[in-house]
Parts: sequence; structure tokens; C-alpha cells
Amino acid sequence: MSIRLGVCYYPEHWPEAMWESDAQRMKALGIKQVRIGEFAWSRIEPAPGELQWDWLDRAIEVLAAQGLEVVMCTPTATPPKWLVDRHDDVLAVDANGRKRHFGSRRHYDFSSDSYFEESQRIVRLLAQRYGKHPAVTAWQTDNEYGCHQTVVSYSPSAQRRFRSWLRARYGSIEALNAAWGTVFWSMEYRSFDEIDAPVGTVTEAHPSHRLDYRRFASDEVARYNRMQVEILRAHAPGRLMVHNFMQMFLEFDHYPVAADLDVATWDSYPLGALEEMWFAPEVKARWLRTGHPDFASFNHDLYRGMSAQPFWVMEQQPGPVNWAHWNPHPLPGMVRLWSWEAFAHGAGCVSYFRWRQVPFGQEQMHAGLNRPDNRLDVGGAEAERVALEIDQVEQAAGELAQPRGKVALLFDYSAKWLFEIHHQGADFHYPRFAFEYYSALRALGLDVDIVPVHAPLDGYAMIVVPPLPIVPDDLPARLQASGAQVVLGPRSGSKTVSLQIPGSLPPGPLQQILPVRVWRVESMRPNITEPVALGDCQGQASHWRDLVELEGEGVQAVASFGDGHPAIVRRERVHYLAGIFDEALTQAYLEQVARAAGLAPQRLPQGLRLQRRGGLTFALNYADAPLALPDTDGAAFIVGGPQLEPQGVAIYRTAQK
Amino acid sequence: MSIRLGVCYYPEHWPEAMWESDAQRMKALGIKQVRIGEFAWSRIEPAPGELQWDWLDRAIEVLAAQGLEVVMCTPTATPPKWLVDRHDDVLAVDANGRKRHFGSRRHYDFSSDSYFEESQRIVRLLAQRYGKHPAVTAWQTDNEYGCHQTVVSYSPSAQRRFRSWLRARYGSIEALNAAWGTVFWSMEYRSFDEIDAPVGTVTEAHPSHRLDYRRFASDEVARYNRMQVEILRAHAPGRLMVHNFMQMFLEFDHYPVAADLDVATWDSYPLGALEEMWFAPEVKARWLRTGHPDFASFNHDLYRGMSAQPFWVMEQQPGPVNWAHWNPHPLPGMVRLWSWEAFAHGAGCVSYFRWRQVPFGQEQMHAGLNRPDNRLDVGGAEAERVALEIDQVEQAAGELAQPRGKVALLFDYSAKWLFEIHHQGADFHYPRFAFEYYSALRALGLDVDIVPVHAPLDGYAMIVVPPLPIVPDDLPARLQASGAQVVLGPRSGSKTVSLQIPGSLPPGPLQQILPVRVWRVESMRPNITEPVALGDCQGQASHWRDLVELEGEGVQAVASFGDGHPAIVRRERVHYLAGIFDEALTQAYLEQVARAAGLAPQRLPQGLRLQRRGGLTFALNYADAPLALPDTDGAAFIVGGPQLEPQGVAIYRTAQK
Amino acid sequence: MSIRLGVCYYPEHWPEAMWESDAQRMKALGIKQVRIGEFAWSRIEPAPGELQWDWLDRAIEVLAAQGLEVVMCTPTATPPKWLVDRHDDVLAVDANGRKRHFGSRRHYDFSSDSYFEESQRIVRLLAQRYGKHPAVTAWQTDNEYGCHQTVVSYSPSAQRRFRSWLRARYGSIEALNAAWGTVFWSMEYRSFDEIDAPVGTVTEAHPSHRLDYRRFASDEVARYNRMQVEILRAHAPGRLMVHNFMQMFLEFDHYPVAADLDVATWDSYPLGALEEMWFAPEVKARWLRTGHPDFASFNHDLYRGMSAQPFWVMEQQPGPVNWAHWNPHPLPGMVRLWSWEAFAHGAGCVSYFRWRQVPFGQEQMHAGLNRPDNRLDVGGAEAERVALEIDQVEQAAGELAQPRGKVALLFDYSAKWLFEIHHQGADFHYPRFAFEYYSALRALGLDVDIVPVHAPLDGYAMIVVPPLPIVPDDLPARLQASGAQVVLGPRSGSKTVSLQIPGSLPPGPLQQILPVRVWRVESMRPNITEPVALGDCQGQASHWRDLVELEGEGVQAVASFGDGHPAIVRRERVHYLAGIFDEALTQAYLEQVARAAGLAPQRLPQGLRLQRRGGLTFALNYADAPLALPDTDGAAFIVGGPQLEPQGVAIYRTAQK
Repeated sequence: MSIRLGVCYYPEHWPEAMWESDAQRMKALGIKQVRIGEFAWSRIEPAPGELQWDWLDRAIEVLAAQGLEVVMCTPTATPPKWLVDRHDDVLAVDANGRKRHFGSRRHYDFSSDSYFEESQRIVRLLAQRYGKHPAVTAWQTDNEYGCHQTVVSYSPSAQRRFRSWLRARYGSIEALNAAWGTVFWSMEYRSFDEIDAPVGTVTEAHPSHRLDYRRFASDEVARYNRMQVEILRAHAPGRLMVHNFMQMFLEFDHYPVAADLDVATWDSYPLGALEEMWFAPEVKARWLRTGHPDFASFNHDLYRGMSAQPFWVMEQQPGPVNWAHWNPHPLPGMVRLWSWEAFAHGAGCVSYFRWRQVPFGQEQMHAGLNRPDNRLDVGGAEAERVALEIDQVEQAAGELAQPRGKVALLFDYSAKWLFEIHHQGADFHYPRFAFEYYSALRALGLDVDIVPVHAPLDGYAMIVVPPLPIVPDDLPARLQASGAQVVLGPRSGSKTVSLQIPGSLPPGPLQQILPVRVWRVESMRPNITEPVALGDCQGQASHWRDLVELEGEGVQAVASFGDGHPAIVRRERVHYLAGIFDEALTQAYLEQVARAAGLAPQRLPQGLRLQRRGGLTFALNYADAPLALPDTDGAAFIVGGPQLEPQGVAIYRTAQK
Repeated sequence: MSIRLGVCYYPEHWPEAMWESDAQRMKALGIKQVRIGEFAWSRIEPAPGELQWDWLDRAIEVLAAQGLEVVMCTPTATPPKWLVDRHDDVLAVDANGRKRHFGSRRHYDFSSDSYFEESQRIVRLLAQRYGKHPAVTAWQTDNEYGCHQTVVSYSPSAQRRFRSWLRARYGSIEALNAAWGTVFWSMEYRSFDEIDAPVGTVTEAHPSHRLDYRRFASDEVARYNRMQVEILRAHAPGRLMVHNFMQMFLEFDHYPVAADLDVATWDSYPLGALEEMWFAPEVKARWLRTGHPDFASFNHDLYRGMSAQPFWVMEQQPGPVNWAHWNPHPLPGMVRLWSWEAFAHGAGCVSYFRWRQVPFGQEQMHAGLNRPDNRLDVGGAEAERVALEIDQVEQAAGELAQPRGKVALLFDYSAKWLFEIHHQGADFHYPRFAFEYYSALRALGLDVDIVPVHAPLDGYAMIVVPPLPIVPDDLPARLQASGAQVVLGPRSGSKTVSLQIPGSLPPGPLQQILPVRVWRVESMRPNITEPVALGDCQGQASHWRDLVELEGEGVQAVASFGDGHPAIVRRERVHYLAGIFDEALTQAYLEQVARAAGLAPQRLPQGLRLQRRGGLTFALNYADAPLALPDTDGAAFIVGGPQLEPQGVAIYRTAQK
Repeated sequence: MSIRLGVCYYPEHWPEAMWESDAQRMKALGIKQVRIGEFAWSRIEPAPGELQWDWLDRAIEVLAAQGLEVVMCTPTATPPKWLVDRHDDVLAVDANGRKRHFGSRRHYDFSSDSYFEESQRIVRLLAQRYGKHPAVTAWQTDNEYGCHQTVVSYSPSAQRRFRSWLRARYGSIEALNAAWGTVFWSMEYRSFDEIDAPVGTVTEAHPSHRLDYRRFASDEVARYNRMQVEILRAHAPGRLMVHNFMQMFLEFDHYPVAADLDVATWDSYPLGALEEMWFAPEVKARWLRTGHPDFASFNHDLYRGMSAQPFWVMEQQPGPVNWAHWNPHPLPGMVRLWSWEAFAHGAGCVSYFRWRQVPFGQEQMHAGLNRPDNRLDVGGAEAERVALEIDQVEQAAGELAQPRGKVALLFDYSAKWLFEIHHQGADFHYPRFAFEYYSALRALGLDVDIVPVHAPLDGYAMIVVPPLPIVPDDLPARLQASGAQVVLGPRSGSKTVSLQIPGSLPPGPLQQILPVRVWRVESMRPNITEPVALGDCQGQASHWRDLVELEGEGVQAVASFGDGHPAIVRRERVHYLAGIFDEALTQAYLEQVARAAGLAPQRLPQGLRLQRRGGLTFALNYADAPLALPDTDGAAFIVGGPQLEPQGVAIYRTAQK
């Protein structure tokens, strides 16, 4: 399986006189594929029905002439002003009832009928023109679905389609009333036509109503993408269908969208992510110019799990970005490190965003491989080095098989929505807690697969389930049948599919494999922790704890809270963590379970990460100081050596194995 | 005067097959009364005019058959969707001009004519059907007026009614212009019809205008409640009229509303209150699972002062709740402690919310006496114990007379609005400062009555007046005539009834009994304090200070600020605190005044609170550690003993007295 | 050039019986001029077309009878209710699309045609009546343009006028598309009529679009003011035209507005400013009751630079104000100190706001020279002392020439807008950084002129340029020609006039005098600093740094960041600070440059400030402790002496010079 580099390019931003030189320099740098077109609608169709293909034809030819493959994008993320002005339902409506305006991007409503038709039209026109072009080997639908909080709209169109969606889901209004429990507060409906979007209410809207609205909105994204893919496949036979997803973005369920594609790709901006996400200020300072050592890899492992073919990084941060509250510059070496990290985790392509920093518009402070003065930037030089190293690795090791971990982490998009809607504690943030389990496993040197709840579980020695409120009926049996050690996070099984409390209390269906009852829960404000004793290890719980009754035979409390309630319970291979624990305690317990699972966890030095792919080990040093790699006696190094400089990369075949 | 337990029950939430067992178990637990119906409109009238009484008839019979008394509620807090859809003026309008939506509760405008009529209709229908039912011994109007910021609406209806209200108050537009002082910034009106709600202005709206809008909105609540009470009294002779008010909720003036009722009841959630109110993070941590030792009792003493008959706790927190940002679980024993605390302060009934935790809807994480799996919860077991102890106490002491303190604290709802509208210092929070005076008195072991400014003041040895900006004309003379020591908080008498500065400067009318002038004021940002010297006691002022000139004979400065300005001034029995002082200084001065008043203040150990009722002393331990009760030599204990465990309760008759 | 005191007076707020006594007491206090009328529209024209001049005629006569000069104001800041109700376009529209409401002040849209006409009408009527009145010697247009965020409106009128403004600026839509770079994200326009206000977009709107909207809004203010001035000049020959600007208020460009006036005046509230502006809590505490020692003077030096005649302080804080979040009272002596500070920096008049504290309306807690009970307040007594001292100074020194610094600080309003729109780091706050350079210079005892980028630069020994993103084409040559030492802040020259990155990278045109390239930038979150080594001086950069390549001959790195990048670069007399440095480092480098410029910087004791005017030195002590004045041997003291008490003022002629 070949690995390669790509780049994102906007010929429409530059004088045509520069195109040829750009293409030549791309080729010389080692670039193999070029993504174009995703924001070019106003140039392709400057006025209604007035198509201008010439410039785009020429741009493709210039690239093709250098042997570069083209990833063509549909331009639907940025409909032009004239289109928006012609239809009154294109713009989405926010939670305050205000129409969003034209003037940036993603200014469309997934539920707009007129925009659905306009999208069909432009996608068909593009597909007809370039679908069979030999240089166009892949198609990207739209761009970053959902970016800037655009999944959910409260427009009349969305509300109308929501009612239909509910009708299809519940069949009768009586069934809906029963499933939601609308008798509470006299919220009963007499018909689907009475149901509005759950917004603008005096106090919180009904949680089951809210959860269904999020499910509906997620389905709308999948419907819209499927429309594009179907048109493209009809006109572009044999080409790869891709979309560029975002990092740790959970506003719609990515699995059904990815199922319609060939390749899941994602856009990797480790520094922007660190600044904008949940990390504490001291963590942001610690990894300021490298990103968190487990953040990019979390996404690699996630998208690997939803892609039929090797996933791609469609946009790789090449230097400072413009969109975070603060935008540090990456340490020298990080662009190379991030690139190799992606390949280590299974990427088929790493494509840099963008070829050259553009001097105008919203993103003018976003770095490219080249500076606005057209000199090669630091990131460009590092990309060039990666291209050379790819050759070395492929010569030494051939094509690399996909990585496969012995540990699976079950990930669920709707868990995020549910805990957001119905949090019971204001800082219960699903992505954070899922990430913390992942990070603990990675710091133990383990390779991890991130998989959906419906994935096959065979072959895993250990399965970690971050808080999973709605447990599919068949999951307990499948967990049992896997033979793996299973670690369940708090609040697992705490809700039915309709967002009700299970009749036998949480963990609901999981009681089949772990006979306990969570009879009470407690959320904890930020200045509160509760001590936890796990043998000699003293830790702390924060955010949340479940108070658990042990009911069946063989269940035991492995650790206890300060007030005596069980903190970890276990029966045979099934473990339940009854709270959110600190990093050290989480790691200690996962290490213990990993050993029980027959794995060989090892506590890596801070900043070191290891990943295996195709018989090779990839070692990455996120730390400030040089590191000695463990267990490298007799290793055969292809890149680097047993001493790893800061921001260094080593690739080697270990002696034993 | 008998004391008893009750519970809130929602037969419409449960299969009818469970009702009888529920009623039997209630009786067995010691429950005497059951509140029902306050959110059941959609079941009583599922479609316009289609009344379904059968289920409710049967539910009442099932309860009556066990000898349980029924508190029937009007269901007006949750009009059904069809009703909202039939009238375009039911939903209130927020400060941004947006109509609030259906989908939670309290989605109605107190000024809506159509909702007023719909309310009359449903209340009349209910009253006609159950008004004379022997088991229905009390009626609750609506539910928690004002919850979720629903007192004030900016709808066209509200604005229209506001104009009429102004016309009635001022008679002529000239009188209004003069009273408000609209010549300032050319805000003069030519007619009442020109006056809008004071909202959406470029900078702050006129404070007199804003204050009148709050008074108007408060009056609208009273008008609405009075409408319900009048209908109910006409059809339900001899039944008690009640409403369940909220904790420390000052958005409308409760005194006129309570004056139309027989029993003021309130809903007590000590843990939710601690989390959501003004307390500092370290205070929230200190009392995390007990609530603040003076919070529930503040409300008990407040509602006791507005109730013709003994007040009730209509909803008592039975375990964790769902609605605070974080929701800890109460320590074992607290449900019992809170129950006895209510009785100690004069409650006639403590009614738990709710019988059983409901597994669906917004409040599914709100505990009940029973768990969703129908097992008795911890709170249920504690309620059962309280029921048994009630019998012991009543056997030993007979019916308990109402408590009566020697200390009065004057409380005023409109003071909160005024300081919010016209704060002059962003953290001048009336409820907090009133509470801090109360808490200091309680920590000195004193029983306190909280009374309105128009209450008779005879019989009090000490009267404490938290910042009272508008002083009724007759109050100074009444304070003087009471013979009590009077302690006035800062900003007292600082405004006329029209929100102007008194011509002779503050404290305005209070100059009759204390001849001083507040010639300047100073608000202080959170990181600023000013030292205060009171004899040997060194303290700090924060938030606010008044700079005071002494004018008349016999006035003296008892304490001074660091820069020499008087901090406490006094003439004879009248004391003025010219700032907000820290806890220790406040307590030290109140102790000194209490001694001057002939009382016997004592500094209680942290967490211990005492209250006397009917010749008994009730001792409550909010602390983590056991306590030895003071002055219990020779005491006769009915419950507990002289050593009080954490969260313990003791009830005894002291030897002396 | 004579200096004098004035006061702001509102005869319409007080019984006519008080007017004469007020005028007599003003005269006795030493007041020479009285400002009236700026909020009196509802009294001048209580109903449409019904003019009532009598009261105003009499008020002017009463003042004139005491020899007081009158500054008459146009009342356009507060149109009456009837006027607002007659036109549907007077009220501005906010960023959420909501019309702002009547009920406070400044409730008008600069782009409203009907309000423009109504303003013309009332200004003409006033000018016709009082234009030639001998006592009316000056006219103030409106009041505090832009206060309460009223510069920018998103109304249909504003959007329509914006399109015309763009048409005039760009000529063709193609030119606009090219200048902005609308090809980015398909934002291209086909005509000016397609362009909306840059608001309500899904993510940030195009920065060039936003910057032009700010420029347009700024021009609208100038257009509106010019309309008033033209009418007034036509009817009031020889009178001074003035407007009262605000402190550190950058929402419109003041230079073109001031160019239409004779005197720039400003409203000085040092305590309110300290509380509301960017200062850290500990700085707010340090200068709580004095204001920051450089804040009022910054504004003095700023407005001196835009005024044809000596600027005035039109409103001087006389005691506590009402509008900050917290409102401390000034230390005794500060009203006097602030008054003398104004004169020291070149003021022609210091006018106190207001004569007497008004007991009603929004500002009832704003102090005046007199208290609401009509006793003289502390500020009044200090004003009286200043009036006497003015006589002493003028007797000793005659009329005082304007101050002239040897150091110029280049100030630019649009820099603030640009960095706000396109910040790249969330806390890059232009006014703060400009102020910090100014403050460092002042703490070195240097007199500073604040001047616009187009000002003549001859005669300055040192020119300091805070971050100036758009550098006029001729500025580099003018800086060079001045012969001064030039210190450039980071981000200077970073954008073209259309908000694009210069083709040769920043500092763009400044490369003519300093051949470097800023090839990368980095913004730093609040918990991040980067060490800087300047010889022996170790400092820190925060917020921002530029990474600089040295390109031409003679450029050298004078200081370096911890990672080796240059922190300060220099060629000959041109210095570039490649980051935001801490106070000590900034001061150290500016001191070094000042010495190179031949100046004599001296590090003043904390709180001491010196300013020279008309051959005199004015010394002001902002500190808590007495100070010994440096270099006063042989000095001739007119006010005070060489020992300066806290909050003290000394005025003297130095021996040497």
C-alpha cells in the first residue's frame, strides 16, 4: 500500500502565469496529488447558468502535464451571492431565529429544497465535464461538513423535514408521546404537525425531543452527501469518493457518511486544536508548539476505523494558522513529525494545506508550504524531506499494511449529543473523556483501534468503552463473545434509545454481563474531588461518580471512594469505572487490565509515542529533550536511530518479534 | 398545631396498576397528604373542550381510600400545545423581543388576556368538579410563579397593560414626568401611550421607568393569582388556598400574593440553591452535601412571616436534583435534618418532591423518595424515620406553637429590584447582604423573624434592616416606638419612592431618628477592601461604603474606616452600618447590639444551629464532626442527646427557662 | 494664551428660582464659561414644531448677567419621543438586526435621512435664535459622538449608503473584487447592490469588507458633524465650533471631525476609565482613587494634536461617577491635580461636569461641584482653589504658550479597527499597546506629542510608532527626512490599504528604511511569554512576536528571543521591536534610543509626572507618599515647593534651561 504526499491548491487565487511554475515546483518537491476547486463556484458560474470552464480546464492540464493527479472538489460549501439571493431558503436559521448571512462560507441549510436542487445541478455539471478526465482520480464532496456550527438549522424547512423524519421513525403520534414521555409537563402532541424544533423554550426543552433533533440533523448531512456521491459515481466511474472531515468533530455521526465514501479524509491542525479544545491552560502551554502527542493520532485511529481504503490527511497544518484565538508557530521539525505520524497510523496520503499562503481574505494569515513572497517556507522544506524519506522507507519495507491494534476503543457520536443535552453536570464532556482513555492507553505504548459500537470485536484483547449512555441491545453479548477484557466508563448504559432511564436502572443492558445497579449519581463542581483507593494507588475522581450496588454473584469492588462506595467494580473480564479518574489512576488501572489481557504495556517517557505499521515501528518525540528509544537492541533503522532528538522521527524494524 | 409529612405525586406518569400500591406505601411510610395535578392539563383536556376526568377521579379515590388528603393543583403552569397554538398572545416575549416557545413549562404571559380567560375556564372546571370533594382539603394555584425568569414579559399585551397601570398610578402624564424626572436626556412623554417597556435602549433605560416596570410585573402576578383564588374559594369552601413559592426568589413581591392565600408554601432544595446562588466556590465546597446551614432556615423564617397559618415546605429535596450546574448527593441524614429544621422553624407540613423518580422528561435525574426501579431510596427511609419521630415529639410535647423571635429582620422585595436596576456597584446584591445579616444573627444562636417593612414591630428587642433604599414615611417613627435596638444597613433611605435622591440626602426619612447625611458613596471592586476599626476588632469593608456627616446632637462614630470616615454611627438605640462588612465584624457588632438589647447571644460552634418552638429546642448539626450541645445540663431529650453526630438532630426541653 | 475654568449646567433640571443664585455662585467660584443645552430638545420643542424659547432665553440672560460666557450645544444627542415615533428610520439597528429603542440617549442612526433633516432643522432654529447672542461665544455640536457603541449601524439606510460609499471609493465592482480579494470563498460580487453589511455571517466576514464598513461608518460621523458645523458657522459668525470627544475612544477617526472644528474638547473621567479599560486588576487597585498617571495626559496630548486652538476638557470628573462597574471616590486633591494636569498639557479650559448632582434619572449618582442638597462638594472646593492658583500662575508667568514635545508618538484610529477585525491573536489591543509606549516615555520624564500619520514630523528628536499596520506610501521617506530616531512597533507595515499582505512581506513600505522581512508571526496566549535578551537586560515578550529575516546591509539584531530569532533589529536611526515587551524592557530600550536622540531621559519616582509648558514645569504626584522633586535647586516655585505631598501639584520655573 503506497503512501504519498499531496497539496491543496487554488489556481483561481493566482495569476495564470504562475501556474506552470507552481506545478513544476510541486513535482520537484515530491507532491503526487493536488486538490482543487472546493471554493470556486463564483469562478465556475459567475452568473446564473453562465458556466466558465476554460480556466479550470487549463488549470487541470497544467497539473496533469507534470504527472500530478487531481482531487476535484464540488464547490457547494460556498454558493455565490447571486444564488443565495435567488432563493429565500438557502441560508440556515440559528437558535435565536435569525437567518445567517452571506459573506463567509457554509452559508446553506442542509434541509433547503432549493439548495439541494442547486447542488445537484452544479455537481452534475462538474461531474459531466471532468468525471472521466484521466488526471482526475478522486472527488471530494463539498468541504468540511458542519464547520462553524452548521449542522443544525432551525429554519422552517428544517422543521418541516423534522416532522417527516419523526413520522417515519415513530409511525404514530402516540408512539412518539410514549417514547419521549411527553406527559411530563403536559408536552403531549396531538399530531406530528404540532411539533416544533426544540429551541427558544422557557427552560430546557425535552431531552428526548432534543436528541431526536440532533439525530435528524445528522441524518440530513448524510442525505446531502449521498446525493452528491450518487451523481459523482454515475459520471466518474472508478474514481475515489472522499470527503474531508474535521478533527474531533462530533456534531454529526460520521460513520454513515463515511460508509457512502471510499476514503475518509480529515483535516489536521494540531496547534489550532490544542488552543481551541478543552485542554487546561497548563496543558496548552506544555504542548504549545507541537500539539498534544495524542491528538492527531486519535483522529488518525478514528478515521482509519471508518474508511474502506486507507484514510488520508486532506489538509495538514504546514505552519501557523489564523483561526485559533492564539496562533503559535510550530517548532522546526513538527511538520515532518506530523506527516510521519499520519503514515504510521495508516494514512495513504498526507496533503498539505496549502501550496502558498494567500495574501487576501479571511485566511491570509494561514501559512502554506510557500510564503506569500513565493519563497519556500519551513514547512515546505520539511515536506520535501518527508518525500525523500518515503522513498527510503518504501525501498526498505515495500508497501505498508494497515496498522491493527489489539486494543479497541468504542466511540459514539450520539453520546456527545446526549451528554450535552442532558448533562446533569455542566462539564461532562464526552470527547474529552474518550480522549483521556485513549491517551492513557497510548502512553502505555499500546496501538489502539477506534471503532463504532456496531463494529466486529473479534481479535481484540482489550476493549475500552468511554461513557456510552445508549448501549445497543446486542452489544453486551458481543463484548462477552469477544473474549476481551472490557473496561466500561461511567454512565454506560444509563439511557434507553429514547433517552429514558432503564427500568432496572443503569447500566441497563450491560447488567447481562455485569450485574450491578447505579442507584444514584453525583456530578462534582470543578473544585471538588473525591479520593479513590486502588490498592496502594491513591487517586482522585472528579466531574462525576456513579454510586453502585453490587447485585449478582462474583461482582467485586476493586477500588473504593473515600466514603466507601465502590469506585471500580468487576466481574471476570468486565470492569466498570464508576467515576472520572485522574490521569495516573486511569493509567494504572488500564495497565493492570492490559496485563490481564496478555498485552505488554510499558510506561513511555513523556512525549514519546510509538506506533507499528507493516512490520515497522515508528517512534516520535514530542518532547523538548532527546530520548533514548527503549527496546531497540538489534533494531534495523531506516530513518533515524536509537537516540531521538526533540521533534525527531525514527523508523525501524525491531530485532525480536 | 399538628405537624405532618406529605408528598408530591403524578398518577398520570405511571401505569394505573401501580396507584394502589403507591397509596398503600405512602400511608405505611407516614405520609398524610398528597399533592397532585399541577402539570396535568394535557391529560385533563387533551383537546379543546374535551374534558377527561375519569382518570383523575380514580386517582383521587385511590388516595382517599388510604385516608390520604389531597392537595389539588390548578394546571396552569403548563398549557398544552393546542392552547398555545390557538392564541397568539399566550407566549411571553423576552428582552430581545423574541417570543418564547412551547416545549418546557411556564410558557405564558401574565398579561395575556386570552390566557387569563383560558385560566379562568380551566380553574373553574376543576373547582366545580373537585371543590367539595371531602378528600381534597387544599388547593394550590399554578406552580412556582416566576420560575425560569417568567415574571417580566415585554409583549405588546404587557406594554399595553403597563400604560394602564401607569395611568392609574400617576393620573396625569405631567405627574409621571415629574416623578421620574424625564427631563433628563429629553425623555419627556406627552401621553401614556408614548411609553414603551424600558428595554432595548442604547444605554441603560431610565431607572424610575425600570423600577415601575418591575412593580407592574409584580402586580400582574398578584392579579393572576387572585383571579384563581377567587374562583377556587367560590367553589371549594373551607379548603386551604396555597401556592408553592420558591427559595430566595425575589422577582415579584410575595407579600400581596401571600395575603390572598391561607398558607404560604415553598420549595426547598438546599443543594441546588448552594450551587446556583452567590456563594463563593470555597463556601460551595464547604457545605457541598448539606447546603448552607442558614439557607433553608432563612426561607422558613421568611415564609413564616407571610403566612396566616403555619407555612409548609411543599417540595422538599429528597436526594440529588437535576437542575443545578452540578448536582451532588446529600449526605446520609440530611433529608431527615432538613425535615426537622422545617418543623423547628414553624412548618405545618413537609412534603417531599417526589414520590418516585420519573424515568423520562427533563427531570428524570431528580431523585424521589423511591428510585425509578421502585425501591425505597435513602431519602424515603429518612422520611419514614421522621414520621416516627413526629409521633414521639407530639406525644411528649403536644401541638407545637409557632416560633417567635426577639429579633426582626426587615425584608423587602423591591429593594432587590432597585439595587439591580440602579446598582452603582456591579456586585451589590441585596439577597446576599440580607442573608449575611441573618446568618450572623443565627450563628449567635438567636431566633429571627423575617418581616416586611409594614409589619408590626412591637415586642422585638432588636430590629435589623438590611440595605433598604426606599423607607416608608412611617417607618422611622415605628422603629423608634418599638423600643428595640435598630441596626440599619448602608444605602438605607437612599431613594424616594420614585427612585430619586432625597432632598436632604440619604438616609432621608431616617434622619428623623438618626441625624446624619450620606454625602458621598463609594462602590468597591472585588479586589478592594477598606479597613474598619471597631475598638479592638479590626475588620474590612468591601463592595460599598457610605461617607457620612454627623449632623445632630448625640450622634457618634462607633467605628471608623482606614481613612478616618465613620464606619458605624449611632445615636441611642439607632445604629447605622456605613458599609458592607466582613462576617466577623458584622457578627461582632450585632453581638454587641444584641447584648445592649438584653438578649443572650452565644457564638455557636461551626455548623450547629438552634431553634426554639413550642417550648422545645431543636439542635441541628450541619458539620462533619460530632458536637457537644451547649447548655443542656438537665435537659430532657425527646430525640437525640447532648452529643450530636454529624448531620444529627436533637430535640429537647431545656432545664432552665 | 489664557486658561480658565468652566462648568456644565442644566437649567431645565432645576426650578427657575435657583438659577440666579447658581450663576452668582459660579462667578464667585471663579467659573468663566457655562455649557448648556445638549440634552434639552424636549424642552425646546415639546411637540412637533412647537418651539419654546422663553425659558432658554431667560437662562442665558441669567448667566450673561454674571458675565459668564455660554457654550451652547445642539440637542441632537437626544431626539424626543415624538420625533422618533414620526420616522421609522431614526433608530439604529444592532449587529443582531434589532432596532435599538428610545429611552436613554444617542438613539439615532448617522445614516438616517430623516434624522439628518430633523437635525438640520433644529440646529438651524437654534443657530438663528442664538447665533449672534453676545454671551454665546462657542457652540458644541451634539454630545459625545459614538458613545454607547453608536458609530456603527446595520440599518437598511446604512447599508444603502455603504453601497454608495463603496461605489465612490472603487468606481467599479471589478476594482472592489480585486482590492478585497473576493475570489476567496467565492465571495465575488456582480454589482455594488449585492453587497450587504458584513454582519451575521456563518463565520468571520471578509476582513477587507469589515474594514471598509468601519471606514464608512467613521465617515458618516464626520459628514453628520460637518452638516451641523456648516449651519452653525453660517449663523454664528466668529464663534468657536467645538465638540466634546471621549477618552481613548477610537470607534471613528477623530482627525477629520476635528478638522471641521475650532477646538477639540474631550471628557475626562480618570476613575471610570481605569475601571472600564484594559488594565489588570492589580493596576486598577494601585491607582484606584487617582486614575492611572498617564491616562488623562495621553488624551490631553492626543487632543492637543488635533486642535487648531488649545483643546479643552469639556467635562472634568468632579467626584465619583455612576457609569463604571464600580465607582470609587477620588482622593482629596485629585480634582485639583487633574485640573492642573490639563493646563500643563495645553488645555485652554477645564470645564467641570456638572454644576450640581441631579437627584433623578440615569446619572443621579454622578457627582457635581455641588451636592444634591446644594452644599459645595469637595470637588467644588478644589475647583475654587484652582481658580485662585490660575491667577497666581498667570500673574507670575503671563499667558502660557502651548507645550511642544521632542518626542512624537504616531497614532492611528484605523489601526484599532484593523487589529480588532483581523487580530490573529485575541488580545492584540492597539490602544493598550500605544498607551504602553506612551507611558514608558512619560515615566522617563519626556514630553510627548501624539500626532496622526500625516502630521509634519520636523523638529522631533524621536518618533515612536506603535503597531501601524497600514503605512502610508510617503511615511518612510518622511520618517527618514525627519532626522529623528524612529522606533517601530511590531506588525507595522503588515497590511496594504486594502488589508492584504504586502507582496514583499511586512513591513512593506518600511523596507525602504529598514530592509527586513517578517516571514512569520506568532501570537501568544496569556500564559505564554518568550524571553528576550537585550545586553544585560533580560525581559519578556508576550501577546505577539514577529519572526524577522535581515536582508539589507547594515541591519543588525540588537536583541534576541530565547530561540535565537531577532527581537529588536536596527539600521542606523530606525529600530524595529519584533514583539510586545514588558514594561521594564520597553522602557530600557526607549531610554537608550532617547539618549541616542540627544534627549535626557530620567527615571521618575513612581507616581511623579512632569510636564513643561510656557517655560514652567508642572509636577504632579499621583503616589501615596510625599516626593522630593528632582533638579529643583534654584527653581522658582509659583505653586507648591520642592517637597510634593501625595496628590500634590507644584509649578515652577527651573534654574537652568
